[in-house]
Amino acid sequence: MITVNEYFDGAVKSLGYENHGKSTVGVIDAGEYEFGTSTHETMAVLEGQMQVLLAGQTEWKTFNAGEKFEIEANSSFKVKIVEQVSYLCKYK
Amino acid sequence: MITVNEYFDGAVKSLGYENHGKSTVGVIDAGEYEFGTSTHETMAVLEGQMQVLLAGQTEWKTFNAGEKFEIEANSSFKVKIVEQVSYLCKYK
Repeated sequence: MITVNEYFDGAVKSLGYENHGKSTVGVIDAGEYEFGTSTHETMAVLEGQMQVLLAGQTEWKTFNAGEKFEIEANSSFKVKIVEQVSYLCKYK
Repeated sequence: MITVNEYFDGAVKSLGYENHGKSTVGVIDAGEYEFGTSTHETMAVLEGQMQVLLAGQTEWKTFNAGEKFEIEANSSFKVKIVEQVSYLCKYK
């Protein structure tokens, strides 16, 4: 079974599946968003670019296709997107 | 705008977007499927494994996470999936 998830009025959509743990592939439209985490997440940028501000940090970091970042459980992060970006998110 | 596509009664789902050309990220449930192409496609396996038979070929080939294969326009290919697999497809 493949779940379809929509957030921010459809500006963020993802498909959930299982492959040695829970994963999603998703797409984010241009804009700025804040996400919360309930588990540890590893986000890999597939196409495009994300600017990311992790909770407790003051400096935005840029991640391009092929790059990854991690977010602790029960935390949050902000992303700024200029052009549609796709990602793979792995939960643990 | 992010399009949600469903095929084979929801056993294949993808999200369509634009990033220097048309792309989709998708997930395929366990099973065997045949897809047709209208444009050239480059398929990259993100997580999992696909067995692939391209039109005109007699030998199934296995592609794992991180590997890619290409399909010509106006062609077709069959895939066999044992566990849910995610992919990035680039059209040109």
